[in-house]
Amino acid sequence: MFAVNLLKELEHVDEYWSPRVVGQVNDQFIKVAKLKGSFVWHKHDEEDELFYIVKGCLVIEYEDEHITLREGDFHVVPRGAMHNPVAEDECWIALIESTTTKHTGDIVVDKTRSIEQQLGER
Amino acid sequence: MFAVNLLKELEHVDEYWSPRVVGQVNDQFIKVAKLKGSFVWHKHDEEDELFYIVKGCLVIEYEDEHITLREGDFHVVPRGAMHNPVAEDECWIALIESTTTKHTGDIVVDKTRSIEQQLGER
Repeated sequence: MFAVNLLKELEHVDEYWSPRVVGQVNDQFIKVAKLKGSFVWHKHDEEDELFYIVKGCLVIEYEDEHITLREGDFHVVPRGAMHNPVAEDECWIALIESTTTKHTGDIVVDKTRSIEQQLGER
Repeated sequence: MFAVNLLKELEHVDEYWSPRVVGQVNDQFIKVAKLKGSFVWHKHDEEDELFYIVKGCLVIEYEDEHITLREGDFHVVPRGAMHNPVAEDECWIALIESTTTKHTGDIVVDKTRSIEQQLGER
Protein backbone atom coordinates (compact mmCIF):
# COMPACT_ATOMS: atom_id res chain seq x y z
CA MET A 1 0.00 0.00 0.00
CA PHE A 2 1.48 3.32 -0.99
CA ALA A 3 0.66 6.91 -1.91
CA VAL A 4 1.74 8.58 -5.15
CA ASN A 5 2.33 12.32 -5.21
CA LEU A 6 1.67 13.84 -8.64
CA LEU A 7 4.10 16.75 -8.20
CA LYS A 8 6.93 14.49 -7.03
CA GLU A 9 6.36 12.09 -9.92
CA LEU A 10 6.42 14.99 -12.36
CA GLU A 11 9.73 16.25 -10.99
CA HIS A 12 11.29 13.04 -12.35
CA VAL A 13 9.97 13.54 -15.89
CA ASP A 14 12.72 14.89 -18.15
CA GLU A 15 11.14 14.66 -21.61
CA TYR A 16 8.16 16.54 -23.02
CA TRP A 17 5.14 14.62 -24.39
CA SER A 18 6.33 11.34 -22.90
CA PRO A 19 3.68 10.06 -20.48
CA ARG A 20 4.72 7.90 -17.53
CA VAL A 21 2.31 5.41 -15.96
CA VAL A 22 2.16 6.06 -12.19
CA GLY A 23 -0.92 4.05 -11.23
CA GLN A 24 -3.95 2.08 -12.32
CA VAL A 25 -7.56 2.10 -11.15
CA ASN A 26 -9.73 -0.61 -12.69
CA ASP A 27 -9.13 -0.52 -16.48
CA GLN A 28 -7.66 2.99 -16.48
CA PHE A 29 -4.04 4.09 -16.24
CA ILE A 30 -3.03 7.20 -14.30
CA LYS A 31 -0.16 8.91 -16.12
CA VAL A 32 1.86 12.08 -15.67
CA ALA A 33 3.47 14.15 -18.43
CA LYS A 34 5.22 17.43 -19.04
CA LEU A 35 4.05 19.28 -22.12
CA LYS A 36 5.48 22.19 -24.06
CA GLY A 37 4.63 23.34 -27.56
CA SER A 38 2.11 21.80 -29.93
CA PHE A 39 1.54 18.02 -29.95
CA VAL A 40 -0.17 16.43 -32.94
CA TRP A 41 -3.76 16.19 -34.20
CA HIS A 42 -5.18 12.76 -33.41
CA LYS A 43 -8.20 10.93 -32.00
CA HIS A 44 -9.05 7.81 -30.05
CA ASP A 45 -12.05 6.13 -31.67
CA GLU A 46 -13.14 4.03 -28.69
CA GLU A 47 -11.79 5.82 -25.62
CA ASP A 48 -12.30 9.06 -23.70
CA GLU A 49 -9.18 10.75 -22.32
CA LEU A 50 -9.05 12.91 -19.18
CA PHE A 51 -6.56 15.78 -18.82
CA TYR A 52 -5.93 17.21 -15.32
CA ILE A 53 -3.71 20.27 -14.89
CA VAL A 54 -1.21 20.00 -12.03
CA LYS A 55 0.77 23.13 -12.96
CA GLY A 56 0.55 25.65 -15.78
CA CYS A 57 -1.95 26.08 -18.57
CA LEU A 58 -3.02 23.88 -21.50
CA VAL A 59 -5.17 24.52 -24.55
CA ILE A 60 -7.03 21.60 -26.12
CA GLU A 61 -7.68 22.49 -29.73
CA TYR A 62 -10.70 20.94 -31.43
CA GLU A 63 -11.61 21.34 -35.08
CA ASP A 64 -14.22 24.01 -34.39
CA GLU A 65 -13.37 25.35 -30.92
CA HIS A 66 -10.76 25.22 -28.20
CA ILE A 67 -10.77 24.97 -24.45
CA THR A 68 -8.28 26.52 -22.02
CA LEU A 69 -7.38 24.53 -18.90
CA ARG A 70 -5.71 25.97 -15.80
CA GLU A 71 -4.32 24.50 -12.58
CA GLY A 72 -6.86 22.26 -10.84
CA ASP A 73 -9.05 21.92 -13.95
CA PHE A 74 -9.88 18.67 -15.66
CA HIS A 75 -11.40 18.09 -19.08
CA VAL A 76 -12.52 14.92 -20.82
CA VAL A 77 -11.79 14.60 -24.54
CA PRO A 78 -14.66 12.50 -25.88
CA ARG A 79 -13.92 9.39 -27.89
CA GLY A 80 -13.76 10.07 -31.61
CA ALA A 81 -13.00 13.79 -31.32
CA MET A 82 -10.00 15.10 -33.27
CA HIS A 83 -7.91 17.15 -30.84
CA ASN A 84 -4.49 18.67 -30.36
CA PRO A 85 -3.02 19.70 -26.98
CA VAL A 86 -0.98 22.94 -27.08
CA ALA A 87 1.08 24.33 -24.18
CA GLU A 88 2.57 27.76 -24.83
CA ASP A 89 4.67 27.39 -21.68
CA GLU A 90 5.67 24.23 -19.84
CA CYS A 91 2.61 22.49 -18.39
CA TRP A 92 2.46 19.57 -15.92
CA ILE A 93 -0.50 17.23 -16.26
CA ALA A 94 -2.02 13.96 -15.15
CA LEU A 95 -3.92 11.80 -17.62
CA ILE A 96 -6.55 9.14 -17.08
CA GLU A 97 -7.07 6.85 -20.01
CA SER A 98 -7.93 3.25 -20.77
CA THR A 99 -5.08 0.77 -20.59
CA THR A 100 -5.72 0.12 -24.29
CA THR A 101 -5.39 3.77 -25.42
CA LYS A 102 -2.67 4.48 -27.97
CA HIS A 103 -0.67 7.67 -27.40
CA THR A 104 -1.39 9.27 -30.77
CA GLY A 105 -4.36 7.15 -31.83
CA ASP A 106 -3.99 5.55 -35.24
CA ILE A 107 -1.11 7.72 -36.40
CA VAL A 108 2.58 7.33 -35.53
CA VAL A 109 4.88 10.34 -35.31
CA ASP A 110 8.26 11.07 -33.75
CA LYS A 111 6.56 11.95 -30.48
CA THR A 112 4.58 8.68 -30.29
CA ARG A 113 5.41 6.58 -27.22
CA SER A 114 4.39 2.92 -26.92
CA ILE A 115 2.65 1.72 -23.78
CA GLU A 116 5.83 -0.26 -22.98
CA GLN A 117 7.80 3.00 -23.03
CA GLN A 118 5.19 4.66 -20.82
CA LEU A 119 5.35 1.78 -18.34
CA GLY A 120 9.11 1.25 -18.55
CA GLU A 121 10.10 4.73 -17.57
CA ARG A 122 8.98 4.24 -13.96
CA MET B 1 -16.77 21.15 -24.22
CA PHE B 2 -16.02 22.43 -20.74
CA ALA B 3 -13.48 22.40 -17.95
CA VAL B 4 -14.24 21.34 -14.39
CA ASN B 5 -12.25 22.84 -11.52
CA LEU B 6 -11.99 20.49 -8.55
CA LEU B 7 -11.64 23.26 -5.94
CA LYS B 8 -14.62 25.20 -7.30
CA GLU B 9 -16.78 22.06 -7.35
CA LEU B 10 -15.79 21.29 -3.78
CA GLU B 11 -16.78 24.78 -2.63
CA HIS B 12 -20.39 23.84 -3.48
CA VAL B 13 -20.38 20.68 -1.36
CA ASP B 14 -22.15 21.28 1.96
CA GLU B 15 -22.41 17.78 3.42
CA TYR B 16 -19.65 15.44 4.59
CA TRP B 17 -19.29 11.96 3.08
CA SER B 18 -21.70 12.75 0.24
CA PRO B 19 -19.86 12.32 -3.08
CA ARG B 20 -20.96 14.38 -6.07
CA VAL B 21 -20.36 13.15 -9.64
CA VAL B 22 -18.55 15.89 -11.60
CA GLY B 23 -17.42 13.96 -14.67
CA GLN B 24 -16.98 10.63 -16.40
CA VAL B 25 -14.10 9.13 -18.35
CA ASN B 26 -14.88 5.82 -20.00
CA ASP B 27 -16.53 3.57 -17.37
CA GLN B 28 -15.28 5.62 -14.40
CA PHE B 29 -16.97 8.46 -12.55
CA ILE B 30 -15.00 11.43 -11.25
CA LYS B 31 -16.49 12.55 -7.93
CA VAL B 32 -15.67 15.15 -5.30
CA ALA B 33 -16.38 14.90 -1.59
CA LYS B 34 -15.69 16.62 1.70
CA LEU B 35 -14.76 14.30 4.54
CA LYS B 36 -14.52 14.76 8.28
CA GLY B 37 -14.40 12.13 11.00
CA SER B 38 -14.49 8.37 10.54
CA PHE B 39 -16.53 6.80 7.70
CA VAL B 40 -17.41 3.11 7.88
CA TRP B 41 -15.55 -0.15 7.29
CA HIS B 42 -16.50 -1.58 3.90
CA LYS B 43 -15.13 -3.10 0.70
CA HIS B 44 -15.87 -3.26 -3.01
CA ASP B 45 -15.45 -6.84 -4.17
CA GLU B 46 -15.04 -6.13 -7.88
CA GLU B 47 -13.76 -2.55 -8.12
CA ASP B 48 -10.68 -0.52 -7.23
CA GLU B 49 -11.25 2.99 -5.85
CA LEU B 50 -8.87 5.93 -6.25
CA PHE B 51 -8.61 8.69 -3.61
CA TYR B 52 -6.92 11.99 -4.59
CA ILE B 53 -6.32 14.66 -1.97
CA VAL B 54 -7.23 18.19 -3.10
CA LYS B 55 -6.88 19.79 0.35
CA GLY B 56 -6.08 18.47 3.81
CA CYS B 57 -5.05 15.04 5.00
CA LEU B 58 -6.74 11.62 4.95
CA VAL B 59 -5.89 8.31 6.56
CA ILE B 60 -7.04 5.10 4.88
CA GLU B 61 -7.26 2.42 7.54
CA TYR B 62 -6.79 -1.20 6.49
CA GLU B 63 -7.17 -4.20 8.74
CA ASP B 64 -3.42 -4.57 9.27
CA GLU B 65 -1.96 -1.17 8.32
CA HIS B 66 -2.90 2.36 7.44
CA ILE B 67 -1.75 4.91 4.90
CA THR B 68 -1.62 8.68 5.31
CA LEU B 69 -2.46 10.84 2.27
CA ARG B 70 -1.61 14.52 1.90
CA GLU B 71 -2.40 17.21 -0.68
CA GLY B 72 -1.50 16.09 -4.20
CA ASP B 73 -1.29 12.40 -3.22
CA PHE B 74 -3.40 9.66 -4.70
CA HIS B 75 -3.90 6.11 -3.50
CA VAL B 76 -5.76 3.17 -5.01
CA VAL B 77 -7.74 0.96 -2.65
CA PRO B 78 -7.59 -2.48 -4.26
CA ARG B 79 -10.80 -4.38 -4.90
CA GLY B 80 -11.75 -6.68 -2.06
CA ALA B 81 -9.76 -4.82 0.62
CA MET B 82 -11.63 -3.85 3.77
CA HIS B 83 -10.93 -0.17 4.43
CA ASN B 84 -12.14 2.86 6.35
CA PRO B 85 -11.31 6.49 5.47
CA VAL B 86 -10.65 8.74 8.47
CA ALA B 87 -10.18 12.52 8.34
CA GLU B 88 -9.20 14.09 11.65
CA ASP B 89 -9.81 17.54 10.14
CA GLU B 90 -11.91 18.47 7.10
CA CYS B 91 -10.43 16.98 3.93
CA TRP B 92 -11.36 17.70 0.30
CA ILE B 93 -10.94 14.82 -2.14
CA ALA B 94 -11.63 13.60 -5.65
CA LEU B 95 -12.56 9.98 -6.26
CA ILE B 96 -12.28 7.83 -9.36
CA GLU B 97 -14.40 4.72 -9.30
CA SER B 98 -16.39 2.51 -11.63
CA THR B 99 -19.88 3.70 -12.51
CA THR B 100 -21.12 0.49 -10.86
CA THR B 101 -19.40 1.06 -7.49
CA LYS B 102 -21.68 1.25 -4.46
CA HIS B 103 -20.79 3.95 -1.90
CA THR B 104 -20.42 1.63 1.09
CA GLY B 105 -20.12 -1.69 -0.73
CA ASP B 106 -22.57 -4.34 0.42
CA ILE B 107 -23.56 -2.62 3.63
CA VAL B 108 -26.03 0.23 4.07
CA VAL B 109 -25.58 2.81 6.84
CA ASP B 110 -26.88 6.30 7.54
CA LYS B 111 -24.03 7.77 5.51
CA THR B 112 -24.73 5.62 2.44
CA ARG B 113 -25.59 7.63 -0.68
CA SER B 114 -27.13 6.04 -3.78
CA ILE B 115 -25.66 6.73 -7.20
CA GLU B 116 -28.81 8.72 -7.99
CA GLN B 117 -28.10 10.97 -5.00
CA GLN B 118 -24.49 11.35 -6.12
CA LEU B 119 -25.60 12.29 -9.64
CA GLY B 120 -28.58 14.41 -8.61
CA GLU B 121 -26.68 16.85 -6.49
CA ARG B 122 -24.96 18.43 -9.51
